[in-house]
Amino acid sequence: MKIERLKGFRDHYPDDMEIRYDFIKKMMDTAISFGYKMIDFPSLESMDLYRLKSGTELVEQTFSFTDKGGREVTMIPEATPSTMRMLTSRKDIKMPARWFSIPKVWRYEEPQEGRYREHIQFNADMFGADSPEADAEIIGLAATILDNLGLSGQYEINVNDRYLMELILRDLGSKNPVDLFPVIDRFKKMDLTDFKKRLLKDLDDDASEKLISLLKDKIDINDVERLLNGYANDVMERVKRLKDTFALTSKYTKSKLNIDLSVVRGLSYYTGIVFEAFDISGELRAILGGGRYDNLSNLFINESIPAVGFAIGDAVIELLLKRNNLWNYKDKRKRYYVVNISSSPEAHIEILNKIRGSGNIAISEVNKRKMQTIIKYAESIKCDFLIIIGDRELSSKKMTIKNLRTQEQAEIDVDDFINNINS
Amino acid sequence: MKIERLKGFRDHYPDDMEIRYDFIKKMMDTAISFGYKMIDFPSLESMDLYRLKSGTELVEQTFSFTDKGGREVTMIPEATPSTMRMLTSRKDIKMPARWFSIPKVWRYEEPQEGRYREHIQFNADMFGADSPEADAEIIGLAATILDNLGLSGQYEINVNDRYLMELILRDLGSKNPVDLFPVIDRFKKMDLTDFKKRLLKDLDDDASEKLISLLKDKIDINDVERLLNGYANDVMERVKRLKDTFALTSKYTKSKLNIDLSVVRGLSYYTGIVFEAFDISGELRAILGGGRYDNLSNLFINESIPAVGFAIGDAVIELLLKRNNLWNYKDKRKRYYVVNISSSPEAHIEILNKIRGSGNIAISEVNKRKMQTIIKYAESIKCDFLIIIGDRELSSKKMTIKNLRTQEQAEIDVDDFINNINS
Repeated sequence: MKIERLKGFRDHYPDDMEIRYDFIKKMMDTAISFGYKMIDFPSLESMDLYRLKSGTELVEQTFSFTDKGGREVTMIPEATPSTMRMLTSRKDIKMPARWFSIPKVWRYEEPQEGRYREHIQFNADMFGADSPEADAEIIGLAATILDNLGLSGQYEINVNDRYLMELILRDLGSKNPVDLFPVIDRFKKMDLTDFKKRLLKDLDDDASEKLISLLKDKIDINDVERLLNGYANDVMERVKRLKDTFALTSKYTKSKLNIDLSVVRGLSYYTGIVFEAFDISGELRAILGGGRYDNLSNLFINESIPAVGFAIGDAVIELLLKRNNLWNYKDKRKRYYVVNISSSPEAHIEILNKIRGSGNIAISEVNKRKMQTIIKYAESIKCDFLIIIGDRELSSKKMTIKNLRTQEQAEIDVDDFINNINS
Repeated sequence: MKIERLKGFRDHYPDDMEIRYDFIKKMMDTAISFGYKMIDFPSLESMDLYRLKSGTELVEQTFSFTDKGGREVTMIPEATPSTMRMLTSRKDIKMPARWFSIPKVWRYEEPQEGRYREHIQFNADMFGADSPEADAEIIGLAATILDNLGLSGQYEINVNDRYLMELILRDLGSKNPVDLFPVIDRFKKMDLTDFKKRLLKDLDDDASEKLISLLKDKIDINDVERLLNGYANDVMERVKRLKDTFALTSKYTKSKLNIDLSVVRGLSYYTGIVFEAFDISGELRAILGGGRYDNLSNLFINESIPAVGFAIGDAVIELLLKRNNLWNYKDKRKRYYVVNISSSPEAHIEILNKIRGSGNIAISEVNKRKMQTIIKYAESIKCDFLIIIGDRELSSKKMTIKNLRTQEQAEIDVDDFINNINS
């Protein structure tokens, strides 16, 4: 009986998983080098956790169900609510706190390129700091992760500031600027006439045109002041903070940083800086996205805890690494295939143990196949060396070793081999 | 509004997660040293995958639901069915194949010590080999993992062979020996009179007494032949294989290996060797368990693929490491806390980058707090060194470095520091 994998889910076979684990490990190591520490939380949370901040729309795009105990539960669609639940449920956490996590997350939506119903998501967040230094560190960490994956120069980061947008919209005459964020979020996907029609519900014609002119191009941070010349003082003050953040961020990475006033991000909880990284060709979905969300903690404990963070999914990273010929992994460990053809059935195990203890890889022949079959197999699973232990070798404490790349073969002393394995 | 974590689920804060990740990494590295390669599969599978082999009982103990597309789905309660689905859905897999996986798995049952509704499970399996060498390698891998966690001498492994038990039961007169496995599985949990009463449905009084005498004690492998003296020839032949397996396994580990004829394991798919590891005090649940299941592939492709493997959950390992004072982790990386008090806001970032690039940890002060507060914080998050960059230091390309353990302080050349950071 054939049972299929569910639609939108993936199996990862060894060759694939080895590369995937390697890039996740690089993300982890980069975050650790910045002082971030790993956390983990349940894959299943009370549905209330998502109703709290997202309304019903998000819940509809999740794997949600009623469990056998009658609880309404959701397979986590993102890390932030769980992370915030953890942060706010303890009072002894030293601030600033720097956390990362690598959960699987699930969304019930149509699968498409770079988008699955299940993916691995790397998250990093800093709590307890609201400063250009904190914002720059988070964008810097995101960029350093991509740089450490070998993607330097292959991406650009588009930055905006939700609070700046709020001030601009207010200056343009909007009464409820926050209500315009979901509209602005759709700017690039909407027809311009429709977009303007929608703006006219909140802004006059002149303000709408002004706003469209602000949204339509990515700009250099140095041109922002000129572009916003004439706006209110609070706008210009906020631009100053953005400039400070850019100056700091540019020391973390050589990659291109743009101001893109159309970036507001879909999630409603952002309050300050927001950013997205895209591949330089612009053909793929966002590589990563994040921002500042200082008020989310209020929903849990009636207290604001400054927070800034980002998330990277594994699917777009995979596409990008493949496009850049970086979808590969070379294990530094040597792989030995060990065959015992002696009359002493356990004679090879000490050699296996020694190779493994040295930090290398030893694979044992467990099927007693013909030597020709064994060599073909050892080559097919990419072993570097074949070791043969026969009665003749055993009697002289030697072993035969064959280099499977060069076909060179030699009989060597077992102790010598073990003592020099890593030299 | 306070939102609670679901019952039976766990949050892992950094101090906890650091240790947990470390022991999972050690399990991985041990498996890799044996030539095993990582796979991964969906957390959600069609419910049919579990109906296939387990009947309805297991399904009742799972988080199962109907998704928005009307599919009956289950959050995976174990790795084996998914692994087998992957193995049998490709024809190009080189045999023997050695795979490991580290999924989260879920069971809907009452939480108790060492048992949660969600846990991390390490799995290792070898496919395509049916030999004492293969059986011994799997038990040897399980033991080496525990030994590499520092648990050598703290556990024992109890081994049985389902096929041997089948032959014994047949020799004792049972018509349907396999039906007795679930009964034998409950031997230690049942009252002896009740147990015998149940046996008498299939066996005569003499045979029942004989069986009970075989089940009641763990025995040394060298006593098995004597104990089974007088049983049929096929029984004695199968004992020979078990002896070979033990001789091989004892070369992998110094830990105690017992024969325990009462071990048959709950899952119905085992066909040969079965084993469980317990802490030496016998107070905890099984640390790990596994066995041979050569016929499971038949349910997928009508072809037997020899298979042997085991699973380790994180919960009992945690209890055991804590009991043995091994619940700790020391990062070899040095932790530097970097404070920029100069008039150049970006002056410290190059130093941060260099420390991070050297494989060490650099944490930046992003809140511009008072020096006394900073030092207290840096100590509380266990930094080794404090680095201060002021205008005076900047002008002479120097930095102040304070050892937070010894309180020693010095002014050193920035280039010298960077060049010697790992020496």
